[in-house]
Amino acid sequence: MAGARLKGFKELTPVEKALQLLFDTVKPQKLESELVPIQEAYGRVTANDIIASIDLPPFNRSAVDGYAVRAEDTFEASPFQPKTLKITEKDEVGQGEAKLIWTGNPLPKGSDAVVMIEHAEKLSGNEIAVLRPVARWQNVSMKGEDVKAGEVAVKAGTRLKPWHLGLLAALRMEQVEVTRKPTVAILATGEELVELGHEPPKNKMIETNRLVISWLCRELGAKPVDLGIVGDNEPAIREKILEGTRKADIVITTGGTSVGKADLVPLALQNIDKSAIVAHGMAMRPAMPTALAVIDKKPVILLSGNPVAAMIGFEVFARPLILRMLGLEEERPRLRAKITRRVAGVLGRKVFLRVKVYEQNGEFYAEPIRTTGSGVFTTMTEANGYVIIPENREGLEENETVTVYLFDNVPIKGE
Amino acid sequence: MAGARLKGFKELTPVEKALQLLFDTVKPQKLESELVPIQEAYGRVTANDIIASIDLPPFNRSAVDGYAVRAEDTFEASPFQPKTLKITEKDEVGQGEAKLIWTGNPLPKGSDAVVMIEHAEKLSGNEIAVLRPVARWQNVSMKGEDVKAGEVAVKAGTRLKPWHLGLLAALRMEQVEVTRKPTVAILATGEELVELGHEPPKNKMIETNRLVISWLCRELGAKPVDLGIVGDNEPAIREKILEGTRKADIVITTGGTSVGKADLVPLALQNIDKSAIVAHGMAMRPAMPTALAVIDKKPVILLSGNPVAAMIGFEVFARPLILRMLGLEEERPRLRAKITRRVAGVLGRKVFLRVKVYEQNGEFYAEPIRTTGSGVFTTMTEANGYVIIPENREGLEENETVTVYLFDNVPIKGE
Repeated sequence: MAGARLKGFKELTPVEKALQLLFDTVKPQKLESELVPIQEAYGRVTANDIIASIDLPPFNRSAVDGYAVRAEDTFEASPFQPKTLKITEKDEVGQGEAKLIWTGNPLPKGSDAVVMIEHAEKLSGNEIAVLRPVARWQNVSMKGEDVKAGEVAVKAGTRLKPWHLGLLAALRMEQVEVTRKPTVAILATGEELVELGHEPPKNKMIETNRLVISWLCRELGAKPVDLGIVGDNEPAIREKILEGTRKADIVITTGGTSVGKADLVPLALQNIDKSAIVAHGMAMRPAMPTALAVIDKKPVILLSGNPVAAMIGFEVFARPLILRMLGLEEERPRLRAKITRRVAGVLGRKVFLRVKVYEQNGEFYAEPIRTTGSGVFTTMTEANGYVIIPENREGLEENETVTVYLFDNVPIKGE
Repeated sequence: MAGARLKGFKELTPVEKALQLLFDTVKPQKLESELVPIQEAYGRVTANDIIASIDLPPFNRSAVDGYAVRAEDTFEASPFQPKTLKITEKDEVGQGEAKLIWTGNPLPKGSDAVVMIEHAEKLSGNEIAVLRPVARWQNVSMKGEDVKAGEVAVKAGTRLKPWHLGLLAALRMEQVEVTRKPTVAILATGEELVELGHEPPKNKMIETNRLVISWLCRELGAKPVDLGIVGDNEPAIREKILEGTRKADIVITTGGTSVGKADLVPLALQNIDKSAIVAHGMAMRPAMPTALAVIDKKPVILLSGNPVAAMIGFEVFARPLILRMLGLEEERPRLRAKITRRVAGVLGRKVFLRVKVYEQNGEFYAEPIRTTGSGVFTTMTEANGYVIIPENREGLEENETVTVYLFDNVPIKGE
């Protein structure tokens, strides 16, 4: 029993300070890059600026269905005095000629504008009447208008969405250089925990944190590595943490960090070479018992065993680390909403208040979720976002406008 | 050449009306359900209300590290007049006794509250001094507090996020019943198109719409089926569309829908048994040439070949259809922002204006992307959302507050 700890944390570290200490110690860098096929690059993060090797469009092409013409042949055309042009079937448009082309077709030699099909009337014989003039290059997508060869098509540190993939494919790229996925080894500790699929004996419960955290990792583009469950056994925990440092870029443990319970995970860490605990006990609620550590430059995040505290701890400490390793600056989705009732904060602590945000009559409202303990799963499943109550606020006032950080969809409520 | 169409669409159908017509004709229903392991259920949509078969927590358990006690033994305790209790090692707490337990441990028989470790002082011998009173059930997570057996743990039509999976696992569920993924067959049409990986001959270009649309489908939880590329050949297009109706719940084509180009895809449709075109030519920009059709109750969405028009058409027509088949009501992520400059609309058309949203000094701003044509990829890659300019507005005023529908992250700008 680590007696000193039985009295509680002497001093809580502010969240930003703890994270800064971790970053200062670990100095996390963007990871190496790898080539992946465009078809599989969705959600990956570009490692470098991607330079176009060709112009896009690759040639002047029609932006409409219509007739390729010489613009000057249409000047002064009007419905009252249409200009008559001769339809050509050749690949070249001469003076007084027009050639029928479709959207995307290359502009035939000699032409420099396209008359929209709606603005021309087919006459008998092989002629059309142009009812409106077109300017030079009107209705033409110019070569290189979208991206020019040599220009940056997609910036470094972009998480690739469908339209980025489309652009890269249009540029004839079959592969793209992306940052390797950070690997995150996840260990659950606790004598009371049982693997899903095993009937838990009375007084034991299913371990759920590894499942939740592995999906939180995948959502961010990291790759989870399962280290399993280990009981309240310091040498076994130490062994597993070391296995994690060999297998992954980041090690996350859950459980065994709170005041009491012999601080088993911090204790195991202290018995590892080149390890240091950077901060233990955060000025936040929930997730106060979180600790941050480092083993030979590798970050170790000690989350609470409490499911909600583990999720909030992940959000605050693991997310920025993973994003940094991906070379990404990515804010959590958020909006501004009115809080529907007064809620208390905790002076000196950053409170992560789970809320249910909804839209009503074009306004966003955030309804605080009532909670009795941070272990209550339903405070997460009923919420779709969180609000941060700062350390220096006794609480939030009803109708106060706050920033809500979203982790799920926002419904529209009827009046 | 479909002569009538060469004059342009006679009448444009309002977007909502077109979608309503499609829904009225197709009557899309939630698809069948299937069982998937909890570990693979992320992003899937619950087919039914999920009823808890056990209480959660399954027993009264401590919410803190501390001493399980009989609450009445602590009444009137204070730092000045602490109550002394005897530590027991037994699994039962008698009068005047206390037992050390950790967060998550079941409450020992006889006890009905927990004194936080910080509020007790270890005395010599086997005693503690309790410095503060606890009420009955204080610091206890009550059996069934989170979810009670027989209650709905997760509602039908919930897209499963990590914490839902955690809750289901805690309820000892190894599988969950989710709605089958809608399948979407995607066909690209156009003589000018070449498959990625093939060097395109001069005047041809890489086909990109299938790649983009397949990822838009996956983002929503649908499964794309690739029908390939087919040239401007009506019987071949017809054959491929029929293949799509056999293979998938929804068929999407791109290209060959605009005025002119012989309306090849609509023509192919008309030559298919039990087919009907529900609407062709939408009162919107971009994506005006979109058409909606049905073949024997199966929806067919005819998107423009233009990449941006195809994406907007997908958003407006395919997304609601896929969500309905998933049994899901899901709004696109959105926020309210100030538009940074005046932009023109088009009377009588719904304009989907691509914007770049950013946050500055706690305010959101939406900067319209300058665009010369809807074929320009970079209007999507530079944007992170869109604003809808209604049919009855000539435009948006500078500083007007608008709803932005987000399809990517919102950065924070320095001052």
